Amino acid sequence: MRISKLVGERLKDSASGTNVKSHNFLLRAGYLKQVCNGIYSLLPPAQLVNLKIQNIIREEMNKVGGQEVLMPVVMPKEMWEKSGRYYSIGEEMVRFKDRNDHDMLLGMTHEEATVQLCTNTIKSYDQLPFMVYQIQTKFRDEARPRAGLIRVKEFTMKDAYSFHYDKEEMKKYYQRVYDSYNRIFKRIGMKNFIAVKSDTGMMGGEIAHEFMLLTDIGEDSIVICPHCDYKANMEVATSIDTKPSFEDIDLKEVFTGDAKTIEEVCSLLNIKPNQTIKAVCYAIVGDDKNTVVVFVRGDKEVNEAKLKKIVGKEVATKDLTETGFVKGNIGCLNLNIPNTRIIFDSSLKDLCGMVTGTNKEGYHTIGVNLKRDLPNIDFVDVSKVNEGDVCPICGAKLTIKRGIEIGNIFQLGTKYTKSMEMTVTMPDGSLMNPLMSCYGIGVGRALASVAEESADDKGLVWPMSIAPWQIYFCPLRMDDENVKEIAEEIYKSLLKKFEVIYDDRNVSAGIKLTDSELMGVPIRVVISPRSLQNKQAEITIRKSSEKIMVELKDLNEKLKDLISQEMEELNG
Amino acid sequence: MRISKLVGERLKDSASGTNVKSHNFLLRAGYLKQVCNGIYSLLPPAQLVNLKIQNIIREEMNKVGGQEVLMPVVMPKEMWEKSGRYYSIGEEMVRFKDRNDHDMLLGMTHEEATVQLCTNTIKSYDQLPFMVYQIQTKFRDEARPRAGLIRVKEFTMKDAYSFHYDKEEMKKYYQRVYDSYNRIFKRIGMKNFIAVKSDTGMMGGEIAHEFMLLTDIGEDSIVICPHCDYKANMEVATSIDTKPSFEDIDLKEVFTGDAKTIEEVCSLLNIKPNQTIKAVCYAIVGDDKNTVVVFVRGDKEVNEAKLKKIVGKEVATKDLTETGFVKGNIGCLNLNIPNTRIIFDSSLKDLCGMVTGTNKEGYHTIGVNLKRDLPNIDFVDVSKVNEGDVCPICGAKLTIKRGIEIGNIFQLGTKYTKSMEMTVTMPDGSLMNPLMSCYGIGVGRALASVAEESADDKGLVWPMSIAPWQIYFCPLRMDDENVKEIAEEIYKSLLKKFEVIYDDRNVSAGIKLTDSELMGVPIRVVISPRSLQNKQAEITIRKSSEKIMVELKDLNEKLKDLISQEMEELNG
Repeated sequence: MRISKLVGERLKDSASGTNVKSHNFLLRAGYLKQVCNGIYSLLPPAQLVNLKIQNIIREEMNKVGGQEVLMPVVMPKEMWEKSGRYYSIGEEMVRFKDRNDHDMLLGMTHEEATVQLCTNTIKSYDQLPFMVYQIQTKFRDEARPRAGLIRVKEFTMKDAYSFHYDKEEMKKYYQRVYDSYNRIFKRIGMKNFIAVKSDTGMMGGEIAHEFMLLTDIGEDSIVICPHCDYKANMEVATSIDTKPSFEDIDLKEVFTGDAKTIEEVCSLLNIKPNQTIKAVCYAIVGDDKNTVVVFVRGDKEVNEAKLKKIVGKEVATKDLTETGFVKGNIGCLNLNIPNTRIIFDSSLKDLCGMVTGTNKEGYHTIGVNLKRDLPNIDFVDVSKVNEGDVCPICGAKLTIKRGIEIGNIFQLGTKYTKSMEMTVTMPDGSLMNPLMSCYGIGVGRALASVAEESADDKGLVWPMSIAPWQIYFCPLRMDDENVKEIAEEIYKSLLKKFEVIYDDRNVSAGIKLTDSELMGVPIRVVISPRSLQNKQAEITIRKSSEKIMVELKDLNEKLKDLISQEMEELNG
Repeated sequence: MRISKLVGERLKDSASGTNVKSHNFLLRAGYLKQVCNGIYSLLPPAQLVNLKIQNIIREEMNKVGGQEVLMPVVMPKEMWEKSGRYYSIGEEMVRFKDRNDHDMLLGMTHEEATVQLCTNTIKSYDQLPFMVYQIQTKFRDEARPRAGLIRVKEFTMKDAYSFHYDKEEMKKYYQRVYDSYNRIFKRIGMKNFIAVKSDTGMMGGEIAHEFMLLTDIGEDSIVICPHCDYKANMEVATSIDTKPSFEDIDLKEVFTGDAKTIEEVCSLLNIKPNQTIKAVCYAIVGDDKNTVVVFVRGDKEVNEAKLKKIVGKEVATKDLTETGFVKGNIGCLNLNIPNTRIIFDSSLKDLCGMVTGTNKEGYHTIGVNLKRDLPNIDFVDVSKVNEGDVCPICGAKLTIKRGIEIGNIFQLGTKYTKSMEMTVTMPDGSLMNPLMSCYGIGVGRALASVAEESADDKGLVWPMSIAPWQIYFCPLRMDDENVKEIAEEIYKSLLKKFEVIYDDRNVSAGIKLTDSELMGVPIRVVISPRSLQNKQAEITIRKSSEKIMVELKDLNEKLKDLISQEMEELNG
């Protein structure tokens, strides 16, 4: 490919509206163009990376026996009514009416379609286990797209679905795909990634893992024990709470005036947040009548994923205007607002000497003893783990990191096969609903995540396995007839063996070298009037900046070695 | 792949609801499953074919300098308002509102998106010509899906777009892609296809060609001159009309009673249809007020594609209830209905002695002399070519064939670059709107078309280049331990060199051989207790039914030869 004909331009200045490195470089280096909020077109270099990632995923899925299929983007309502998700999924699913007034939707995921595809096409237990997968376009109407391809509305996804005749066998297969995911992320050049336990969310099922790239720009919090194997998404992470201990005094109302927030009350009473009882109010989505109030220790945060599971519905923090609550003074004693469900977090269990609101303006109650004052309360785990909390497995202190979810896998059980009436015949002639697991990887997000992790301050740094081209061929002084002539020859010879982008522009060395770094091609080959005098070319390795002078006659051989060396490392 | 694990089942009986061979076999052989009207899932064998076709298309597009990109399925209204197509395209385009009440649509084609992608990323004339293409999902809300993958709502399409600085250069590039299309269809194993001139339809532009597979199940009519190079889609085909000649008599009203249709009137008056003037009424879509009446010779049909161009809007035959027209008696003399545009087809020019309606019940007028009675009329070509009409190029008699449109190419000109304000800088510093062409191939339709053309009465017959597997390995008597053991060995050895589907089922020879034919894998290898006694295997070529006995030790070599032989023919 000649860069003079390459569609896309390299920009000197940072793209506006983004502070995420990969997003910025992908825009500046001519990989992406935004169509509208959360929707992008991939320019040729990005599509080359995209296809390479797809092929690696395809190879690994085939290795674990996956069979590639292609299901539709647009599906009829009926299928999703059977599973119940037509109603349980919110605005992120696009719904429309076709020309015959039939309700249709854009698939966010394909459990329903897979079960429809496999019902009757698989009939007997001895055809299990099997897995189908597809690499296909998904649309999710994300409320908050961000960071380029990291969180978008439309994306290419590999989604796989396996079917099983018992739990043991499902778990065994799940582990195979788990291992396969580790290989995929390693092969595409990701380094600092881990698998963590995760919430099953809208998918249903019991056990799920997310693969996370650890990075400060991640939007997920991951709880990690540095001493044992415990790793979990904040949404499901638990810890052994180190309970604080305070003097057990009598209940007493104290004047706190305008002090409303935990910070203000603590400052006024000269206590720490862990001596307070914080109230957080939630509305239940789709239920205008009822409210949920969660009491949690002042140093803890409510874990909304856990709360959702307890309530059984979506929740959203509630605006307290026009309710019966006294904002900033909600207390756990004598709270009496109709249609309010009250939940106590286990961080409060057994504590005494605590401070809570009085449910009236200007006052708080001190000396709350949970056991004494609220003897019949059930405590549940509805709070987030704090940095430094104790690992539930080994007792070490937990750390919290940020991560991007790069893949997820779920043991779904029979949720879909039961509701959609898929059965297989068992050896004894009985019919059973097969167990099911599903496994996803967002291809565009994988692209952006690798870009994020590997980029340096000069630009992108692609791993060899997914680089748009292996070699950036960069002759300097294209106005020199000799350089131009030899460059064309070398280009033709390189093309026979390698994937090459040829910087055939007649522009300054500065522009060429800067662009080659920005675009992140793993190996750069420079020739110039001076290097040609010595019959040499200069090789630069993008990721290490290492420079190697090589005789022109040895160039192809040297490049072959460098490429296969990196490929071996990646394929391990 | 072991057939015992393959997702999809082979059906003995014809699929109901279809009389199209390819559709029937693709359903019966486990390639397709319908999701709802016009929407299908591809089972593993079909997806294998699909990917092979895509790769052949990709190779040929790259050969003519195409750069692969990926544009979104979902696009915002604004882009399509600029080109005007948001309003000019009808119900076949899906429109919906996103969660923020923004108007969005599902792309049927990507001229707008391509211009958006290339605007500013291409700035100078010396970057032209260039072509971008994508292989991507399209959704068109077809009114009448039919014949499986032949006409569906959702499909994978290769769409390409090229940009040019002048007409000469655009035509040259267009010819390169035209040649590339011929190679693609040949390489995927299509035989009886031709390129014909076609209507530009909703795309706009002036020159367009369709690639047509000639087949009786085609829904397009193609006018072909057997003596010269003239080939055109009926929509744009012209002919030299052989004018009939009748006695020039005086006008006279005759009683025709209940005779309304051309047939009835001809029968009553003992004349042929070519002596009558037929009236056809049309409504203009989106215009409740105006009507169009076309007068055409009784032996001719109105060509609605031509009519659309003349009217400049979509038209639809009009129900005459509650209009001022006298159904069956509409006449071209003294027709006076308000808001009616009258169009005369050139087939009527200069004729005399013709019969027309009187615009009142029970009567027709005979002896119409167009020149004498309607001296100031313009005649336009608005009728379909009839079989046997005279070729406009060489004067031979035209034939009409049926065809499936397998690809189309359009010279669009500046329609999109002008409306969307894409410019490039010319050598003299001026700005110009580049000229544009576009080129489409429906991948699923190509799959179904090859299936249709190559199938025989036993099932599918895949060309080697796109077959899901090259070899159907079919051991008979899998209950025989010796067969089973050797079969596993042979399978492993075949897998190293070939794409193999292994019929490892313990079922009758009849079922196995029938399934192998139904599924259409190009080469079948059978071993049985008897063949193993002679250390032999039996090779059967699916398309010719040729059988070859081969020593087991020579099997791989023989297969290699057979495969490369067919591949050479296809790539020729």
